[in-house]
Amino acid sequence: MARDRSERRADEVTGEFDLIDRIRARARGRPDVILGIGDDAALLRAPAEKALAVAMDTLNAGVHFPAETAACDIGWKALAVNLSDLAAMGAQPAWCTLSLSLPQAETAWLDAFLDGFFELADRHGVALVGGDTTRGPLSVCATVHGFVDAGKALRRDGAKPGDDLWVSGTLGDAAGALAQRRAGRAIDPALRSRMDRPLPRLSLGSSLVDVASAAIDVSDGLLADAAHLCARSGVGAEIDIAALPASAALRAAFDADALRALQATGGDDYELCFSAPAQARAAVEAASNRDGTAVTRIGRIVEGHGVRALLANGSEWRPASAGYEHFG
Amino acid sequence: MARDRSERRADEVTGEFDLIDRIRARARGRPDVILGIGDDAALLRAPAEKALAVAMDTLNAGVHFPAETAACDIGWKALAVNLSDLAAMGAQPAWCTLSLSLPQAETAWLDAFLDGFFELADRHGVALVGGDTTRGPLSVCATVHGFVDAGKALRRDGAKPGDDLWVSGTLGDAAGALAQRRAGRAIDPALRSRMDRPLPRLSLGSSLVDVASAAIDVSDGLLADAAHLCARSGVGAEIDIAALPASAALRAAFDADALRALQATGGDDYELCFSAPAQARAAVEAASNRDGTAVTRIGRIVEGHGVRALLANGSEWRPASAGYEHFG
Repeated sequence: MARDRSERRADEVTGEFDLIDRIRARARGRPDVILGIGDDAALLRAPAEKALAVAMDTLNAGVHFPAETAACDIGWKALAVNLSDLAAMGAQPAWCTLSLSLPQAETAWLDAFLDGFFELADRHGVALVGGDTTRGPLSVCATVHGFVDAGKALRRDGAKPGDDLWVSGTLGDAAGALAQRRAGRAIDPALRSRMDRPLPRLSLGSSLVDVASAAIDVSDGLLADAAHLCARSGVGAEIDIAALPASAALRAAFDADALRALQATGGDDYELCFSAPAQARAAVEAASNRDGTAVTRIGRIVEGHGVRALLANGSEWRPASAGYEHFG
Repeated sequence: MARDRSERRADEVTGEFDLIDRIRARARGRPDVILGIGDDAALLRAPAEKALAVAMDTLNAGVHFPAETAACDIGWKALAVNLSDLAAMGAQPAWCTLSLSLPQAETAWLDAFLDGFFELADRHGVALVGGDTTRGPLSVCATVHGFVDAGKALRRDGAKPGDDLWVSGTLGDAAGALAQRRAGRAIDPALRSRMDRPLPRLSLGSSLVDVASAAIDVSDGLLADAAHLCARSGVGAEIDIAALPASAALRAAFDADALRALQATGGDDYELCFSAPAQARAAVEAASNRDGTAVTRIGRIVEGHGVRALLANGSEWRPASAGYEHFG
C-alpha cells in the first residue's frame, strides 16, 4: 500500500503537475472540445441529434494484464477495451478521460504508456480531455464517450428467437497467449499481439447499427458474454462449438480440446458477438466485407434462457469454466 | 499485488455480476438516461443548448483516505471530490460512472459504500449509469457529467488584475483532522466530518456563473490551487493570510502557526476559490446568502505571476509546503 498522505515528505511536492503537463502536451483537440485538460472539468459539445454513449473500464496490473507488460501496450489496451464497449453499441468514439495510478512518477514509463495510448486514440480521432494522475498501485481507468443514433444503438436486449448469432474475427488468441505464458512456453507473437493490442471493432460496430438486433463485446469469454446478451434479451442461444473461428496461430499451438476451451471461455477477445435476423445474412456479410473484418455465424437465438454449446453430433459441450469473472 | 488472471481458480467464477446487480438495484434513473447500468455503455441524452462538463478523479486507499476509513465515507467522498470539480465549473451534475477495485468481494462493505455514495448522489439528483467492478487494491474512480452554459462556465483562466479573490466556507478542517490522526490525538468530530464527508459547493458554483471571473476547487491546498488559477489566467495574486476563514473547531484545536499552515496548504477542503470583479461584491454576497454558504474575501488578483501570502504587517508568509501533490 502506498504511504498515507499524512506521511508525505516535503521533497515529494513536485511531479504530479509535470506528469499532467506531459500528458497534455500529447493530447489533440477536436472541434467539439470547448475546453480540454487543465481545468476542473472538460467542456464538451455533444451533438443534439445523437445519444451520448459512455463506458468506463479499469485495468489493474496483475489482474487485467501481466505485471511485466510493456508500458506502451498497457496504454493501448486501456483505451482499446473501452473503445470495444463503444464498438459493441455501434457508437463512434469522440472523447476520453484517463485516471492513472502509478507507484512512482517515471517519465520514461509514462511516455511509453502515452505512445500506445495515443497511437490508438489518434487512429480513431479520440480526444483525451481530462482525468487525473495519482500515486498508488499501477492501475489505469478510462472513460470513453461516443455518439450513436439513440434508436439504432446496438443494445444487448434486442435479440429475438430465430436470429442468427455471429462473432467477428477469431476467438481465443489472447487467452492462448496467456496459457503459453502460464505454461512457461514461448509466446507466439501473433497471439501476444492479440493479448496486448486488441483491436476495437469500431468500424464493424458502426456498420451493424441497421443490421444487428443485439451486440456485446467478448471480454469475459464467448459463452459468458453470449449469456449476458441472452439474459438481457430474455432468450436463449445454441452455439455450434465447431463453428467458432480460430486463427492459424492458435490452431498451430494447441490441441483440439484446448483450442475449444480457449475459444469458448478464454475471454479478452474484444470481438463483437451479435445477433441478426436470418434475412439479414447478406447485410451482415456486406458490412463485414466493407469493413474488412471477418464474421462467422456461430449459432442461433432460441426461446428460453441460457446458452447451450453444441458439438457437431448434437451433444452438449460443457466448459470447465464458463468465462472470466472477478471475485470468488 | 492481486493474483494474475492466469492463476484464477474455478471457485472464483462467481461474484462480479452479483456486485454489479447490487449496485444496479440501488441506482436511480433520470429522464435523460436512455439506458443505464447493464449494457456495454450507457446511452444518455445531453441537452443541446448546454456544454457537457466532465471530470474524473480517483481515490486510492492509503493515499487519498486513511485505510481505516468507513466504507460509507469512502463512497460519499469518492463522489464528493468529483462533484466538487463540477461545482468549480458552475455546472449542474447529472450522471456519473463508477469503477470500483476491491481486494475481495464483501457485500457488507459494498452495501455500506453504496449507502454513502447514493446518499450524496440522490441529494444532487445524480444518476449512476455505468462503470465496472474489478479485483485489485482498494481504489475508487468516478467520472461525473454535468451541464453548464458554455459561455458562462467558471473556468480557471478568467481572472483579471483588480479582481477580488474569494473562498467559500472554512479552510484547513480536513487537514486538521489528518494532523490530529497523525499525532495520535483524538480527532475532533467536526473536523473528521470535513475530512470524510466533504460538501461539494454545487449550488454556490451555479450561483456564481454570472458573477465570478474564474474558479477552482481547493483540493491541493489554497495556495497551490490559487496558483493553478493564476497560472491559467496569466496573473498573480496576493492573499491576506489573516483573512483565511477557519472553523471554531479548528481554532480550538491548533495554535496560530499550525492553523495558518493548515488553512493555507492543508488541502482536501473542497471549497471554491474564485475571483470576481470588485464591483461584483454585492452580487457575490447575494449568491452566498441565497445559497447559505459563507464566502470570505481573502485577497486580490494582481499583474504578474505567482501567489504571495501576506501577513497583516505586509511581510510575506512562506509555507513549509506549498500544497499537496502526488509523487516526488
